[in-house]
Amino acid sequence: MSEPFADILETFENEYPGRDYTIEVVAPEFTSVCPRTGQPDFGTITIRYVPDRRCVELKSLKLYLQRFRNEGMFYEHAANRILDDLATAVRPRRMTIEAAFTPRGGIRTTVTATVGKET
Amino acid sequence: MSEPFADILETFENEYPGRDYTIEVVAPEFTSVCPRTGQPDFGTITIRYVPDRRCVELKSLKLYLQRFRNEGMFYEHAANRILDDLATAVRPRRMTIEAAFTPRGGIRTTVTATVGKET
Amino acid sequence: MSEPFADILETFENEYPGRDYTIEVVAPEFTSVCPRTGQPDFGTITIRYVPDRRCVELKSLKLYLQRFRNEGMFYEHAANRILDDLATAVRPRRMTIEAAFTPRGGIRTTVTATVGKET
Amino acid sequence: MSEPFADILETFENEYPGRDYTIEVVAPEFTSVCPRTGQPDFGTITIRYVPDRRCVELKSLKLYLQRFRNEGMFYEHAANRILDDLATAVRPRRMTIEAAFTPRGGIRTTVTATVGKET
Amino acid sequence: MSEPFADILETFENEYPGRDYTIEVVAPEFTSVCPRTGQPDFGTITIRYVPDRRCVELKSLKLYLQRFRNEGMFYEHAANRILDDLATAVRPRRMTIEAAFTPRGGIRTTVTATVGKET
Amino acid sequence: MSEPFADILETFENEYPGRDYTIEVVAPEFTSVCPRTGQPDFGTITIRYVPDRRCVELKSLKLYLQRFRNEGMFYEHAANRILDDLATAVRPRRMTIEAAFTPRGGIRTTVTATVGKET
Amino acid sequence: MSEPFADILETFENEYPGRDYTIEVVAPEFTSVCPRTGQPDFGTITIRYVPDRRCVELKSLKLYLQRFRNEGMFYEHAANRILDDLATAVRPRRMTIEAAFTPRGGIRTTVTATVGKET
Amino acid sequence: MSEPFADILETFENEYPGRDYTIEVVAPEFTSVCPRTGQPDFGTITIRYVPDRRCVELKSLKLYLQRFRNEGMFYEHAANRILDDLATAVRPRRMTIEAAFTPRGGIRTTVTATVGKET
Amino acid sequence: MSEPFADILETFENEYPGRDYTIEVVAPEFTSVCPRTGQPDFGTITIRYVPDRRCVELKSLKLYLQRFRNEGMFYEHAANRILDDLATAVRPRRMTIEAAFTPRGGIRTTVTATVGKET
Amino acid sequence: MSEPFADILETFENEYPGRDYTIEVVAPEFTSVCPRTGQPDFGTITIRYVPDRRCVELKSLKLYLQRFRNEGMFYEHAANRILDDLATAVRPRRMTIEAAFTPRGGIRTTVTATVGKET
Repeated sequence: MSEPFADILETFENEYPGRDYTIEVVAPEFTSVCPRTGQPDFGTITIRYVPDRRCVELKSLKLYLQRFRNEGMFYEHAANRILDDLATAVRPRRMTIEAAFTPRGGIRTTVTATVGKET
Repeated sequence: MSEPFADILETFENEYPGRDYTIEVVAPEFTSVCPRTGQPDFGTITIRYVPDRRCVELKSLKLYLQRFRNEGMFYEHAANRILDDLATAVRPRRMTIEAAFTPRGGIRTTVTATVGKET
Repeated sequence: MSEPFADILETFENEYPGRDYTIEVVAPEFTSVCPRTGQPDFGTITIRYVPDRRCVELKSLKLYLQRFRNEGMFYEHAANRILDDLATAVRPRRMTIEAAFTPRGGIRTTVTATVGKET
Repeated sequence: MSEPFADILETFENEYPGRDYTIEVVAPEFTSVCPRTGQPDFGTITIRYVPDRRCVELKSLKLYLQRFRNEGMFYEHAANRILDDLATAVRPRRMTIEAAFTPRGGIRTTVTATVGKET
Repeated sequence: MSEPFADILETFENEYPGRDYTIEVVAPEFTSVCPRTGQPDFGTITIRYVPDRRCVELKSLKLYLQRFRNEGMFYEHAANRILDDLATAVRPRRMTIEAAFTPRGGIRTTVTATVGKET
Repeated sequence: MSEPFADILETFENEYPGRDYTIEVVAPEFTSVCPRTGQPDFGTITIRYVPDRRCVELKSLKLYLQRFRNEGMFYEHAANRILDDLATAVRPRRMTIEAAFTPRGGIRTTVTATVGKET
Repeated sequence: MSEPFADILETFENEYPGRDYTIEVVAPEFTSVCPRTGQPDFGTITIRYVPDRRCVELKSLKLYLQRFRNEGMFYEHAANRILDDLATAVRPRRMTIEAAFTPRGGIRTTVTATVGKET
Repeated sequence: MSEPFADILETFENEYPGRDYTIEVVAPEFTSVCPRTGQPDFGTITIRYVPDRRCVELKSLKLYLQRFRNEGMFYEHAANRILDDLATAVRPRRMTIEAAFTPRGGIRTTVTATVGKET
Repeated sequence: MSEPFADILETFENEYPGRDYTIEVVAPEFTSVCPRTGQPDFGTITIRYVPDRRCVELKSLKLYLQRFRNEGMFYEHAANRILDDLATAVRPRRMTIEAAFTPRGGIRTTVTATVGKET
Repeated sequence: MSEPFADILETFENEYPGRDYTIEVVAPEFTSVCPRTGQPDFGTITIRYVPDRRCVELKSLKLYLQRFRNEGMFYEHAANRILDDLATAVRPRRMTIEAAFTPRGGIRTTVTATVGKET
């Protein structure tokens, strides 16, 4: 993936920074392209995080995820890449990404990655 | 949100203060208005708490939640606001709010916040 | 509730007192009456306990729960009352009651209470 | 309901008038107000129709259904009213409305009405 | 059952008598008493009808069904009795009752009865 | 099966013979023995009938079905045998038996048979 | 498929030929090989038939279906082939085969075929 | 949609033309672009047909459906277009398309269209 | 229960004794007889264990569980008896039995017991 | 099993070795042969691991699992064998195999095994 995607991500101020609370965002319409075959892949991205000073603005998140639509990328790398981009944008206290892809060849894959300390 | 909502909340005496026990209330008919677009949002509010000396009276809770019906408010703020209002009213030993909103733009959001020490 | 209900509860000897094991009883046909409106309430009572020297006899438990049928009582008090009556009858090592009521006014309530030390 | 609601409904040309085909629209976020108690009601509206020369534009349908948000109306009348308004706007070959409301007092109601001949 | 129950049923005018449409009411909190054993029975009553000039008022229907709470009656007779009482009250074009009872002795029973011509 | 089973079946008078209505009985705890291997088989028996002058008494039906517990019989024959015995006992206007057995060797079998004219 | 498979099928006498009744057999462990790629395919075969003078013996049916395990065959042809073999073996009054295959490339296929007149 | 898509569709010979049988293909990974907003839409396409002399080759069908990925098109037109393209390619005795799209603005749409006579 | 049942249990050597791993066996076709009423009871037995040097042979386990078929025994005792017999036969590092019985009198019971240290 | 299977497994470099993250692969189309009866067994293999320097390439994993298709092996041994082969190929920080087999004789078995320290 040659271009940066994360510049489209917007954030807004967390008005409750004195409290550790959790925001979960589920995006079941994620699609990218297999780098080997050129065939589309489909999956559900779940993002769970404890905000510090900033929250992800949801419309910009939707547009960010749409940028993967015609991009070739392995499952394992896509999940870690999204985690890195979001963690850089909102600097959360803790964030987890779960990327669950639809079956290929009768095999179904889910990748889960986390940054930040356990709360 | 310019006006206070919490004055409508009523409480009654907890007759079992010597025991830590849990009350869970699920309100699947929550609706408010998006502050940007003016469009209605819909969601389910789940409240889980260990009472100390007072319990929330359920009919007043229903009326309290109805006050958000025509109010503009972000998801993250609505959840924390409900938690603050209820915690002030019943002074629980511990209370958690889970606010799960229906999808917008193919994206589904849930906000969870807690006050009080772990039991 | 003026009369005692618990006198109907029967117990039998636990033949395996040397082992901590769990008995779960689910009674989905519980009904009582709202003390304010006189309207019937419906719910499911789940009892989970580690017996010490006695077990609850199931037919007597059924008859005990039927005594609430025409009795007025708040949810929170009914759950704690059942726990007290059963714990007095069988003296368990640990016992939990979960009382889940059907929705009223679009709001669903569950009360959970425990006696005895964690096992 | 003193004012007309249907003026907001927009339609577009059906490009396949030579074929009888079915469009189903499900709107699970319908809410109105009980004319007796002033309490909000919630329900799911399902619209199924065979278009003739016009189709309902979906965004205008959403705005039309939102107009019931603060209006008092019985279930039976709301369902028939929506059917009348939509049938007037698109002149379908056949149209069915199913309005399923959430429980009140432990009772759940669904109203179904149809215009046009069986296909 | 010595007393009449049906006098509590209220009706209101059907504002759309020119159209055959269907009203379905589901009451999952029905309970009566077994005439042989005196034990409570539980079930779900589903009423489906095409109104003519009158509709059943739902709150009065709820109160009507509650009158069976402490009455002894066989399943087969309860279903037919409810059908007779409701059909007398609203004079529907067609009405079906489905009474599904919870299991007794590992056996589950459902009784279905209809009045009026097929529509 | 050398002995008659049906002598245990009891019936009671149908108080609504003027109406064609349906009684469905589901017995999910049916068990018999495979005549070839001697291994137990398990299944769910569903009986659906329109009574004429008599109804099946449910407790006697339960005892009747228990008589198959240690009897060897093929699936196809058990279903038809139950249908014959019940139809002889109650002389229904119409009766259907559905016998659904749990899988053996990864294969699941359901047998359905009917007597009486379509209603 | 060069060899005949159907010679393994065994049948037994239908003891109730005077009655039209239905036997449904579900075999969820069917597997064959894709003739193009050599990759295994998986599916569920459902057989529904009204017997005339013979019924399929279930163990022989299981062995018959296992013969496809290492055979290359298109979905559409496998379903029709099974129907032809079974219909030849038992000469049913009516028989339907439904073959539902697990997804390949995100696409799921079901083939349904019938012999004999409608009953 | 300026270009033809259907040229990619391949067919193979139906080896059982003497029998009316049904092939159902479900493609839950369909995606196109909203012609108004440029935002991606997602849906499930179900194709059900009775073949005459040709069947749709599944890999070419998958590639055909992928051509909609970056194309702008209304729901109603996409469904009818797919039906026209497929019916032209395989000349079925009967074919139905059901296109079920994921919710937008809390509203879910399904379009169903058919060619050919009822079988 | 006068006779020993456990002599039918067979075991085989665990080829991976160097590793703590878990074997779960679910037997949903368990049936015994109520010692008070003589009526059959039905339930699902779940066995979960970490083997040491021996594993339970599954066919012998099936035959062992069938021995309860015509035996009278209370729920609580049956679960503990199965645990004792199996633990004696395979000497596991840890073993749990969960016995879930179908409802009687509207009440559902599950008994869970464990031997061996937590892993 | 006389031949090695694992030589077909391919791996690729983990580009995020600095992070402990989890990859879950579910393969519901696993089949092998019972070593006693020669009958096919079916099951679902779930692999969950934290990669160190290498990840399993999914197509090679699919081909590896297909090698068990005509091989005789006990459930308990198959699960441990797959774990050993995969752990040798990718040297994970932690890996768990769960092998859930379809019922035989009314009994369902699941084997779970783990290598590596808890994370």
